[in-house]
Amino acid sequence: VLISSERADRPNEFAHAPVHRNASIECPFCPGNEHLTPPEVLTYTDRGAGTWTLRVVPNKYPAIGMQADPEIAGAHEVIIESPEHHATLGQQLMRAVRDRMLYWKQDERIRYVQFFKNSGEAAGASLEHPHSQLIALPMVPARVREELDGSARYFEDHGRCFFCDELREGARLILETDQVQAVAPWAPRFGFETWILPKAHESHFENTEPAAVQALNGALRIIIGKLDEAAAHPAYNVILHTAPLHEPELEHYHWHLEILPRITGVAGFEWATGYFINSTEPEEYARLLRDSP
Amino acid sequence: VLISSERADRPNEFAHAPVHRNASIECPFCPGNEHLTPPEVLTYTDRGAGTWTLRVVPNKYPAIGMQADPEIAGAHEVIIESPEHHATLGQQLMRAVRDRMLYWKQDERIRYVQFFKNSGEAAGASLEHPHSQLIALPMVPARVREELDGSARYFEDHGRCFFCDELREGARLILETDQVQAVAPWAPRFGFETWILPKAHESHFENTEPAAVQALNGALRIIIGKLDEAAAHPAYNVILHTAPLHEPELEHYHWHLEILPRITGVAGFEWATGYFINSTEPEEYARLLRDSP
Repeated sequence: VLISSERADRPNEFAHAPVHRNASIECPFCPGNEHLTPPEVLTYTDRGAGTWTLRVVPNKYPAIGMQADPEIAGAHEVIIESPEHHATLGQQLMRAVRDRMLYWKQDERIRYVQFFKNSGEAAGASLEHPHSQLIALPMVPARVREELDGSARYFEDHGRCFFCDELREGARLILETDQVQAVAPWAPRFGFETWILPKAHESHFENTEPAAVQALNGALRIIIGKLDEAAAHPAYNVILHTAPLHEPELEHYHWHLEILPRITGVAGFEWATGYFINSTEPEEYARLLRDSP
Repeated sequence: VLISSERADRPNEFAHAPVHRNASIECPFCPGNEHLTPPEVLTYTDRGAGTWTLRVVPNKYPAIGMQADPEIAGAHEVIIESPEHHATLGQQLMRAVRDRMLYWKQDERIRYVQFFKNSGEAAGASLEHPHSQLIALPMVPARVREELDGSARYFEDHGRCFFCDELREGARLILETDQVQAVAPWAPRFGFETWILPKAHESHFENTEPAAVQALNGALRIIIGKLDEAAAHPAYNVILHTAPLHEPELEHYHWHLEILPRITGVAGFEWATGYFINSTEPEEYARLLRDSP
């Protein structure tokens, strides 16, 4: 648990429902309001139009970071994915994630950069304008460590990468391009949970070729569109799991994006046990998303 | 992940918001509608009034259990805590939990009985009438195993029970009776998270004296009342963590109730890392709840 009293200053910290700012005139992420955010650490621009297409800025209310405490190595950044307030998901998002991971990798104290996107109130979003977040951490997160350990055991038992095996499960395949596949995972915790993985075995996201990163971004946009159709625009989280920055290439681990729709609620049983209850087989979710336009 | 296709038949399984049945005339848990639930496995009655005061019935849509699959040892039960539709929390609830745990302990295949309560839509409740649930499992849940391991390490390092040490932290004390204490835990994941523990070291809830169980029930009702005042009637989960049924008394483990208010949302960062971000110190939550009427 990170206790971050800076975040207590955040508007609406104790309220039940987050603020929705529909009017782009008061949205801190809309063009013209750049002065409402801290200065950019990364900007992409459209040379033709002379405007920015993506900005990365430090979070004004950091959960962790040098901003809050110079003793603690860490940072909390916001990716403003598009200048358009009503866009769904930016076209350069995953490229920006890779760029920022390569930046933080130069800092020996940063062991992991966690990318995540919250979309919709039920998924924890407090602003409507399309944005995502990065938290640079001085430790490898507990869940990532669990995945690393679990996949190492799988490799020991089977002599193969668990994630490469997932790519061979045709009945759970949702989408395939030259570079990536989207699949319904073997044990979905949430209804319509979807993972996107590179077809080539690769443990470190930041080492992936730009073309594959672009294919990932395209597949993510398609999956969100299918999800919007199949499940009536649900709130969702997207998270990236990848090998820790300063570890060597791992033959048992394979980076992947997890898309976690927040359709079924997480209740007492899940908090108590760490187990999830799902009423539908992953093959059925895969079929529904494959058939969705 | 438990895949339970029986639950797909549950009303509203795919809808965003659960049904609220305000009229007690159609509430399956109100007196007069007993035919809408499976037959009781436990009933408490008020001899004076000639009516039931609490009923335990098998869940009509079990997540696990002999009901669903005779090969899998397990059961999913619902505790109807009170005949009153608008009561907040039953007066005999924890006594019923103890009775059902003692019942399931006779079955060698059942290794753990998970008690949990979901109150409010944001906490996963689909019915308004006060009720809780029990899931009897053929394994010890992952999170319970983590707590057992963590507390064993603490005992090795400090020679004392972690939970007994929590009881000595006056600045985080919320409530104290002869038998139990309510405290803000050292690392609260949720705003106003509260634990209730017996003052005497006890690893197994089902071995606790009835008087202490009754004191626990009273303290739980007071804490929920304080929470309703301090945080405007939030949704919440209550879970019980106790030693596995067939393990001997443990000197490093201490049963406890966890009250998890669902005020701050759980978003991408938490799902990705297993870490939580909290903007307030536990001492401050304890002070707010102590001062709350």
